[in-house]
Amino acid sequence: MITQKEITLPSYSRGFHLVTNEILRALGELPEQGLLHVFIKHTSAALTINENADPSVRDDFEPSFNKLAPENAPYYTHTMEGPDDMPAHIKSTLAGSSVTIPVSNGRLNMGTWQGIYLCEFRNQSNRRKLVLTLYH
Amino acid sequence: MITQKEITLPSYSRGFHLVTNEILRALGELPEQGLLHVFIKHTSAALTINENADPSVRDDFEPSFNKLAPENAPYYTHTMEGPDDMPAHIKSTLAGSSVTIPVSNGRLNMGTWQGIYLCEFRNQSNRRKLVLTLYH
Amino acid sequence: MITQKEITLPSYSRGFHLVTNEILRALGELPEQGLLHVFIKHTSAALTINENADPSVRDDFEPSFNKLAPENAPYYTHTMEGPDDMPAHIKSTLAGSSVTIPVSNGRLNMGTWQGIYLCEFRNQSNRRKLVLTLYH
Repeated sequence: MITQKEITLPSYSRGFHLVTNEILRALGELPEQGLLHVFIKHTSAALTINENADPSVRDDFEPSFNKLAPENAPYYTHTMEGPDDMPAHIKSTLAGSSVTIPVSNGRLNMGTWQGIYLCEFRNQSNRRKLVLTLYH
Repeated sequence: MITQKEITLPSYSRGFHLVTNEILRALGELPEQGLLHVFIKHTSAALTINENADPSVRDDFEPSFNKLAPENAPYYTHTMEGPDDMPAHIKSTLAGSSVTIPVSNGRLNMGTWQGIYLCEFRNQSNRRKLVLTLYH
Repeated sequence: MITQKEITLPSYSRGFHLVTNEILRALGELPEQGLLHVFIKHTSAALTINENADPSVRDDFEPSFNKLAPENAPYYTHTMEGPDDMPAHIKSTLAGSSVTIPVSNGRLNMGTWQGIYLCEFRNQSNRRKLVLTLYH
């Protein structure tokens, strides 16, 4: 069986944000066993799974990703949409456009310290669209 | 239900290439609802989802990934297959070996600006094999 | 049909390790056709698919990932758990928390040179938990 739902997240500032609860709320009751696939319909934002407890981890992701895909690199030719645009595309490929998570005993079977991050790479806030697909 | 198909892409030069249409052509009619999983059977190429409109984005990925995994790094020991080989392995892990995309209303439910990239990391062109798996 | 199993890997030292056989042993007989999803329940380790033959590839991943997420970066604020902790979180997002692999003709349909890597990013060895989900 497949259940699918499209949601629009609230607007988030540039950075890394926990959105596990937003996703769980949209899904309602989970099946006993299955897989949840979460897909982001954008190329300048991403989804990843990482530490859900200490906000300093999410803070440190921001300068770390800026090092990996710096603004104003001399070899960028795609510069029309601003200095944060091309880095955002590269970061979205590094982090990934979807996460897939097992569902077991009616809940997301992540580790104690895992949560789903929305990675917002643009300076201007956007309301990002996600597609949630449950296989069970 | 599962539908699975193996395809061989045409040869692409080193760089990032849109292959959404090649994949759609191989699949034929899509189910109303489901998930498409696309897997690349190689470790020196990758798949990712990114901007499908302006070719300058794909151009800028090439120097950006070369910075992330430079050729001739002094700590490489796996050098027998040429200077582009070990960087290709690292890049393939950074970008990923598969993409999973929701299918809704009989079409790939990506954002307007999203497309599937084949990332070819070797200097010598190769014909890359993909496994397409549809769940519906 | 869904088959799901949770396993605990043996302890591995910091670095990149082939675990394809550990996963196959836990699964037993594979279905004719389907998908295998392997999920790691941790945020300082990761899973990826890469070269399964020459151990020098796995060796070279270690310094390469250390360059991508260096220890003691001046902008880290999450430093309480040691200098290897924050880099481990970044590396886990770069490599990814799960891999999905097609199953065809009763076997994992990877390329000849592909294997599943456990990426252990902490200095202290850990026994990592995986959730294996088979769709068929």
